[in-house]
Amino acid sequence: MLWLVGLGISGSGSVPEDAARLIRSADIVYLETFTSPACELKPIGSLTGELRTAKRWMVEDGREILDGAAQKTVVLVSYGDPLVATTHNDLRVRAAERGIPTGVVHASSAVASVIGECGLHHYKVGRMATIMNDAKSLTTPYYVTYRNAVVGGHTVLLLEYNEDDNFFLDPAAALRMLLEAESGQGRGVFTKDAYVVVASRVGLDGQRIRAGRISSMVDRDFGPPPHTVVVPGRLHFTERDAIMGLAECLDEPPPETRAIKSIPSQMIEKYVPMVDNSMADLPDLPAYRTILENARLYVQDAIRALEDGQDEVAILSIGYADGLVDALRMIHGIEPKM
Amino acid sequence: MLWLVGLGISGSGSVPEDAARLIRSADIVYLETFTSPACELKPIGSLTGELRTAKRWMVEDGREILDGAAQKTVVLVSYGDPLVATTHNDLRVRAAERGIPTGVVHASSAVASVIGECGLHHYKVGRMATIMNDAKSLTTPYYVTYRNAVVGGHTVLLLEYNEDDNFFLDPAAALRMLLEAESGQGRGVFTKDAYVVVASRVGLDGQRIRAGRISSMVDRDFGPPPHTVVVPGRLHFTERDAIMGLAECLDEPPPETRAIKSIPSQMIEKYVPMVDNSMADLPDLPAYRTILENARLYVQDAIRALEDGQDEVAILSIGYADGLVDALRMIHGIEPKM
Repeated sequence: MLWLVGLGISGSGSVPEDAARLIRSADIVYLETFTSPACELKPIGSLTGELRTAKRWMVEDGREILDGAAQKTVVLVSYGDPLVATTHNDLRVRAAERGIPTGVVHASSAVASVIGECGLHHYKVGRMATIMNDAKSLTTPYYVTYRNAVVGGHTVLLLEYNEDDNFFLDPAAALRMLLEAESGQGRGVFTKDAYVVVASRVGLDGQRIRAGRISSMVDRDFGPPPHTVVVPGRLHFTERDAIMGLAECLDEPPPETRAIKSIPSQMIEKYVPMVDNSMADLPDLPAYRTILENARLYVQDAIRALEDGQDEVAILSIGYADGLVDALRMIHGIEPKM
Repeated sequence: MLWLVGLGISGSGSVPEDAARLIRSADIVYLETFTSPACELKPIGSLTGELRTAKRWMVEDGREILDGAAQKTVVLVSYGDPLVATTHNDLRVRAAERGIPTGVVHASSAVASVIGECGLHHYKVGRMATIMNDAKSLTTPYYVTYRNAVVGGHTVLLLEYNEDDNFFLDPAAALRMLLEAESGQGRGVFTKDAYVVVASRVGLDGQRIRAGRISSMVDRDFGPPPHTVVVPGRLHFTERDAIMGLAECLDEPPPETRAIKSIPSQMIEKYVPMVDNSMADLPDLPAYRTILENARLYVQDAIRALEDGQDEVAILSIGYADGLVDALRMIHGIEPKM
């Protein structure tokens, strides 16, 4: 039989009773350390069986673990909850395919605990994302956060951890990367004034929750890992009170209304005057009149569609108007406006 | 001191070591049963202090609990993780305001565990919602699910639980309500063919994960609560394998592509071939080459931006490409394609 067992997030104190019992009595115990280094078994007491370390490839490959589990009681132990990592669930599926019985002992998980520790409401949390130490990979966390924020939702941003180099992405470095991504993307998600919460060592000794504007946070030393960055969306007043009461605030949390404008509004605001200006530069040729008249109508359509909540039609219309005008500009060798 | 302590989701087996220790030694133990009826302390052993039941009003009001915690060691015990319920976190904030030290013992939570038990990936889970036994309140769960689904995300739908009447909303009844909501809203989220997973008694004896099309699920008897409905978004093939391997499937899970197409995807699908065709009709004049080259690049940009999740950029680009080409068509008196 294969057991997937979680230790929870707070050392020996978070270990569920069933987890401790199974670890002590199993024939083989695999300890995986690639999802977190905070995984250790010392406080569990003496084991009956054999203790082995499971590297990522070993869990991904799975054959050794499953061959053992076909004959004996095998426990795969991980930090936090055992089913948060995709690799572990894949192993469970393959065990089921081979007819090997499986069991799970759930435990506290950092991803779930961090929300409450930051004083935020669970039902407002949107999709999460991971920040990798690579500027090119920031598009996903940027837009995940944006999409959560425009509907008022919170975002949990995990930070890269690499077992082989014992590398944790530092939260201050991550925030600096997000500021840079902002200067490229320009949607107002990670401006200097954007409010973020950094949750450090949740559940562990030395847990600290620090909150403030990005500008106040980028130069901070956040101390030893693990850390998580949480980007609150629209704050309910009880959430605002909770952040002020429970976190170390470098700045006051923002009031309930939030500044992020939707991308379609931003685009219409930028492109409507731009297309108007582009038209003004063109010679007044009869052949162009219908085309420019069309462009003007599409600009009006764009404004109206945005007001109606038809965001996609608004963008398509303003893009089309811009294209009509720019084609004429190109014919005349006038540079397109940006 | 006030401790907020979770029992986890699997009876005595899920109780973290710290939780058991604190419950046994506290001066006063409050057991709350309004977030779940599955909360019981028998397996913890004999208590040193006094055991009291905490109704919702008592936690919301908080004075009795906080007055006690100002003098003695008070433990508030709840099912699952103690910070998932908003009321508990509010109490912690008020304790902090009164200078009463607080501590938290996290534990396994149903909301976090259900994802892995259904074989789904955590990072694809969007905002969650609750289905109340009231057709008028369905708009929120409907659109929360829609918004998650169009970006491929999964949705966890909790079902109403009311302590006073010992009422749990039945999952089959909830699915029937969602079908009715679909006939009003018409976005294709809860059609008869939509695929859902019902997770019953996660972590408890008699846990069952059942999956199928809504039409196969609405007449089922799902047995004793608690239940959760999970609506998968776009399934990765490993998630599909996991559902087939781990759940009781009444129908096969849908392939990776999903029926709910976002408006931007629909637009790109329609306009990319249309712009290509429009270009083919134009005369091959040297003056047009740069313009057509630009149009081709913007079509490519649109496809790439959609893949990157930058829906608005995708629409703007395809609209622009269409405008560039149509300007040339208008100069030549060729009708724009629709």
